Amino acid sequence: MPRYALRIEYDGRPFAGWQRQDGPDSVQQRIETALAALESGPHRIAAAGRTDTGVHATGQVAQADLARDWDPFRLSEALNWHLKPAPIAVTACARVTTDWHARFTAVERRYAFRVIARRAPLTVDKGLAWRVHGPLDADAMREGATHLTGRHDFTTFRAVQCQADSPVRTLDEIRISEAEYPGGRLFTFHIRARSFLHNQVRSIVGTLERVGAGSWTPERVADALAARDRAACGPVAPPDGLTLTGVSYPADPFA
Amino acid sequence: MPRYALRIEYDGRPFAGWQRQDGPDSVQQRIETALAALESGPHRIAAAGRTDTGVHATGQVAQADLARDWDPFRLSEALNWHLKPAPIAVTACARVTTDWHARFTAVERRYAFRVIARRAPLTVDKGLAWRVHGPLDADAMREGATHLTGRHDFTTFRAVQCQADSPVRTLDEIRISEAEYPGGRLFTFHIRARSFLHNQVRSIVGTLERVGAGSWTPERVADALAARDRAACGPVAPPDGLTLTGVSYPADPFA
Repeated sequence: MPRYALRIEYDGRPFAGWQRQDGPDSVQQRIETALAALESGPHRIAAAGRTDTGVHATGQVAQADLARDWDPFRLSEALNWHLKPAPIAVTACARVTTDWHARFTAVERRYAFRVIARRAPLTVDKGLAWRVHGPLDADAMREGATHLTGRHDFTTFRAVQCQADSPVRTLDEIRISEAEYPGGRLFTFHIRARSFLHNQVRSIVGTLERVGAGSWTPERVADALAARDRAACGPVAPPDGLTLTGVSYPADPFA
Repeated sequence: MPRYALRIEYDGRPFAGWQRQDGPDSVQQRIETALAALESGPHRIAAAGRTDTGVHATGQVAQADLARDWDPFRLSEALNWHLKPAPIAVTACARVTTDWHARFTAVERRYAFRVIARRAPLTVDKGLAWRVHGPLDADAMREGATHLTGRHDFTTFRAVQCQADSPVRTLDEIRISEAEYPGGRLFTFHIRARSFLHNQVRSIVGTLERVGAGSWTPERVADALAARDRAACGPVAPPDGLTLTGVSYPADPFA
């Protein structure tokens, strides 16, 4: 069967995450249902990142096997038609070989986490950013982040229920940008790695926020990492600010 | 009575615009109701820009007269408390003199209009941008815009029901920025003037979009303006992409 790579964008607010579950509404199920409207199913698709409840994506990548030989552009248009009115959209589609796998062929995942430091509640960005009372010191957060980049045992920074075989991961970058925002400041964490542990990004951002607020010294991040103990982690940031922005492969399937 | 200037942010999607009406939910009414929770009313507030249904603001400015001598920060916190859960927030508050007026003292209004040119429907930006199939030629739109800046009779570019005495306005700037957007391109129109006519920004953006799409030549914008005829206008852009981003006064009340 021909295999297709799909680049998928979604607003995570109404969904119980990417992964299909019995009962709760999921992004995966919505896409599989749209595929079933094109070709009788069941369809089982796989994605590069299994985002949690309330987490968004602008660059999720999934694969779908279909019986028919679809023109990729027409396939994306047909899927978007059947996905309506759910806030899910296929923004790119390409034919790939059957040895290509959205999850296992991926060599990098990129996430962005938006933190808005201001007193007033959020309006247009409600559910799309984490609002903290702030202010935050970006340089202190950057110093704390230096302890986390590279190859480490991230036991402290993964959920207890994380199912990965190993807690060792290599974080390639944590970049923190700062910008004006009405009534406060916007801090965006750009984090990339080959793969992530469950809740790793939210655990890191929640911990670095404590550094930015002055409750933690940057050095305490190093101590927390070295402890290899979940209890040493700072508070886990809420899902609202998190977006899967991109996935890389040895060759870009959408190029 | 002490007068306060309020900088207000809102998501326009659930509201029938700024202005209080009998029946439909408005931003003005929500704020007046919040004020009444602090001091018995009725309260009547005035704003710099009376935004339409579905139009957003990050920098609306309004004035409120209160009997008590409020600390401005405490007033903003109390209003935000009573505004919940509506997507309206007071992001700055200052005491001003009673000869200061949010609308009549204003010397500049700034609007941003976001247009996303891509095939796929919008997800996180649904209701916050105008999606067109595109592509759009930014340079052609910029050339068309040059005909509109400066002092002109904007009869072509105002709503039939516009109540302004004169159709003459001076547009100080139309700046069009272009950025990457998943599956397409984002074009943001930044428009500023002392004051605007009803539907002027949406009429301008809708017309320039026709230029960007290649349906209109840039010169046709000059012809439409010279016609001084509403029928010569291009399609009016929807409210979704429009945000009142700021208002200027001879002295910044929030400085």
